[in-house]
Amino acid sequence: MAKKITSRQQDYSQWYNDLVKEGQLAEHSAVKGSMVIKPYGYAIWENIQSDLDRRFKETGHQNAYFPLFVPKSFLSKEAAHVEGFAKECAVVTHYRLKTSEDGKSIVVDPDAKLEEELIVRPTSETIIWNTYKNWIQSYRDLPLLINQWANVVRWEMRTRLFLRTSEFLWQEGHTAHASSQEAVAEARLILDIYADFAENYLAIPVHKGLKTVNERFAGAVDTYCIEALMQDGKALQAGTSHFLGQNFAKAFDVKFQSKEGKQELVWATSWGVSTRLIGGLIMAHSDDHGLILPPNVAPIKVVIVPIYKTDEEWAKVDEVAKRITKELKSLGISVKYDDDDNRKPGWKFAEYELKGVPLRIAIGPRDVEKNSVELARRDTLTKEFVSADNLGQYISDLLPVIQKSIFNKALKNREENTHSANSYDELKDILKNKGGFVWANWDGTTETEIKIKEETKATIRFIPLEEEKIEGNCIYSGKAAKHRVVFAKAY
Amino acid sequence: MAKKITSRQQDYSQWYNDLVKEGQLAEHSAVKGSMVIKPYGYAIWENIQSDLDRRFKETGHQNAYFPLFVPKSFLSKEAAHVEGFAKECAVVTHYRLKTSEDGKSIVVDPDAKLEEELIVRPTSETIIWNTYKNWIQSYRDLPLLINQWANVVRWEMRTRLFLRTSEFLWQEGHTAHASSQEAVAEARLILDIYADFAENYLAIPVHKGLKTVNERFAGAVDTYCIEALMQDGKALQAGTSHFLGQNFAKAFDVKFQSKEGKQELVWATSWGVSTRLIGGLIMAHSDDHGLILPPNVAPIKVVIVPIYKTDEEWAKVDEVAKRITKELKSLGISVKYDDDDNRKPGWKFAEYELKGVPLRIAIGPRDVEKNSVELARRDTLTKEFVSADNLGQYISDLLPVIQKSIFNKALKNREENTHSANSYDELKDILKNKGGFVWANWDGTTETEIKIKEETKATIRFIPLEEEKIEGNCIYSGKAAKHRVVFAKAY
Repeated sequence: MAKKITSRQQDYSQWYNDLVKEGQLAEHSAVKGSMVIKPYGYAIWENIQSDLDRRFKETGHQNAYFPLFVPKSFLSKEAAHVEGFAKECAVVTHYRLKTSEDGKSIVVDPDAKLEEELIVRPTSETIIWNTYKNWIQSYRDLPLLINQWANVVRWEMRTRLFLRTSEFLWQEGHTAHASSQEAVAEARLILDIYADFAENYLAIPVHKGLKTVNERFAGAVDTYCIEALMQDGKALQAGTSHFLGQNFAKAFDVKFQSKEGKQELVWATSWGVSTRLIGGLIMAHSDDHGLILPPNVAPIKVVIVPIYKTDEEWAKVDEVAKRITKELKSLGISVKYDDDDNRKPGWKFAEYELKGVPLRIAIGPRDVEKNSVELARRDTLTKEFVSADNLGQYISDLLPVIQKSIFNKALKNREENTHSANSYDELKDILKNKGGFVWANWDGTTETEIKIKEETKATIRFIPLEEEKIEGNCIYSGKAAKHRVVFAKAY
Repeated sequence: MAKKITSRQQDYSQWYNDLVKEGQLAEHSAVKGSMVIKPYGYAIWENIQSDLDRRFKETGHQNAYFPLFVPKSFLSKEAAHVEGFAKECAVVTHYRLKTSEDGKSIVVDPDAKLEEELIVRPTSETIIWNTYKNWIQSYRDLPLLINQWANVVRWEMRTRLFLRTSEFLWQEGHTAHASSQEAVAEARLILDIYADFAENYLAIPVHKGLKTVNERFAGAVDTYCIEALMQDGKALQAGTSHFLGQNFAKAFDVKFQSKEGKQELVWATSWGVSTRLIGGLIMAHSDDHGLILPPNVAPIKVVIVPIYKTDEEWAKVDEVAKRITKELKSLGISVKYDDDDNRKPGWKFAEYELKGVPLRIAIGPRDVEKNSVELARRDTLTKEFVSADNLGQYISDLLPVIQKSIFNKALKNREENTHSANSYDELKDILKNKGGFVWANWDGTTETEIKIKEETKATIRFIPLEEEKIEGNCIYSGKAAKHRVVFAKAY
């Protein structure tokens, strides 16, 4: 009856796959590298979209939609960008199929070859800045604050559901500004929105930081990021916000007339989070029984399971269950009353535990007599009997407590798995035996960073946004340290 | 100052293009055939999505997401489907680019050729039914009621913004059922949802009907449609709902165990509406001054324009404008207070008229003294002075009146442009000189239908869902008529 979930201890990677599969979140498709996001997984994405979209709109951003295809030549216009993105892309070369000569199959029509190949967008800076050229003439047209919800494709040979797939869903913001300061402020504003969203909506504690030159987005001047720690001690980059300087304005010749009447290049940002967040959400909180979803993002916050044997018992229990369902709905709490009589209560208990529904209410005939219900918390696996009177209010108060508790648990996990290394040997030892975030001194050179990466597989996850004066030497080169940074192996 | 809108009389097609452009709804992109949907146009699409999505969910549908790419071989699995869809598709043949030998550009890497080409989905029946095969085993797994919001690509040489573009946005529902009756009922339920949505949300009167065999969706047993009439007397197919029989279940071998324990093929429907609806919305209601948007779908329902000369006047007007803005927001009415002092009131009046904002409030110093405002209706271009007290309630009551009035105007237009033809000459005469919907007797053969289409460019838009016994003969062949149908030229 119970679906098999591999334990984290036994095989963390398999545990993750089991949760995605048995939790009915997503699955591999017939197209190599592309996933199918199943209804329960997509409902999580809809909640993520809805909360982020509200935050973007509250800060003055508007949504728009740009083409799926990018002309190949566009990718080469920004030198660093092409280096970082041009490689693994889906390339459209033809626009027509035809029936084969034997009439039995279809083949690509060689007469329908495109003059210039089209790339399925891996990201949209180039097509968007080519468009902005016509939208921006004067400082009056700035700032331009636009976001797009879209699918993108970056070819992947080794895929993992949500974490790394060829096609994924995301939002990409692309803003244009009259000054460098304003663009940097925008990139930082978005970083704050991402961090607040991650911590208060997904209950995932994150560090805000700056990427090193080597880890920077292709075409960016600065890449800001939020970094989270998963339960296996590996880091997950959960969102990035880029200050692009005037790089794309230069590449696409986007200028504006300033208040002083001068022609100046426009300043840019871009920023995005993707369905990868769902992977992070799973790995940050879940346990060996299944998913644990924070109430804010959970598609179903409360499930009600009726327990009965006779028709008479059913009638009593059903009445109370319906009343409670109605009460919770009226409070805006997403509730599912599972009255399917093809399934036994035990099956349902296991199913909703697996699916990470934050609260389960069980109601049997004795509960009806006592005017109480059994309330079970998914995150702590604890149960209590509470009065059926004012249950809606009780649950309204409890959900934010659960949300906070899940966050605190993840925070505690991060604290317990954050270390300091005072030597390269110590760094290697920690990475090998403990994992987690490791603070260490770094000389600031890409050379050192790459050598450490090659030797340990760990990368610099971020440079803190506010640094005290750094004392001491780089753990690798022994030269004077420039930054104290966080190393980790990452997804 | 005033942006130039070509009149309908002068050039209907140019009028449409002017509205799309000057109304800031969309524009052509650098990628031939693909459009950019600008923020104001996208806000209309977001409203459409939100209202339809609510209707789908209320009737038990869930959203999911399936891959953008379809393996080429999938398209050939359903014979009729490949005939109808395989031709004009974007074909992905490679998955990598590389720097050219001279280092100056990027080229497609010939080593990265796909073994099997991937098609950018023109619609998703094949990839979805290939997935459903694994989701459906028993009658307990049915019905499966799934919808997807996605982009699709059908290559087009001659494009028109919103109406016909290579890439467009849409929703596509794909449902699976245990019986033919249930699947037909689903297709009809969705048809009713589409019709109600078109009439009550978009204020576009539609006929519900059945497509002829010739106009049917490739792979369907029956295609139901909603058909609208535009101001130029041309028809627009605004949505389709297909009963697919067991065609896709057969093609992808999707069977279920019935309650009686037998293995049976699954019954299917699919249905969709797209960004084409925005084209219909524009053409159904707008006039030579610009867009007219029904309040339900309008991104901005009320705009407030302050009128003042001195700082003192400004202070008074601004206070009242802010109070009204707050009042309308508290009533859930989307309002924009345009306090931009770079633009004159006259410019703003023209701008919001062009953008089809249903109501405009102008407030000057005299209005403040009189405790009134000037309220202008976009649909009728009428103005009235109304008390500033309880203005929110007044507007709340007025918006549905405007909504209904716009619908009635479109209905009147349709009635005035619906004709009957008792002979083929009469049909040709009406199509040539009047346009519109033309009822006429048809013998029910594809042969007649195609000949009429070749000779007049008019197609059979629909067969009525409920027919009385048909008397008389086919206007073309003179044979006994099988149906009385509507002919029209169409978008």
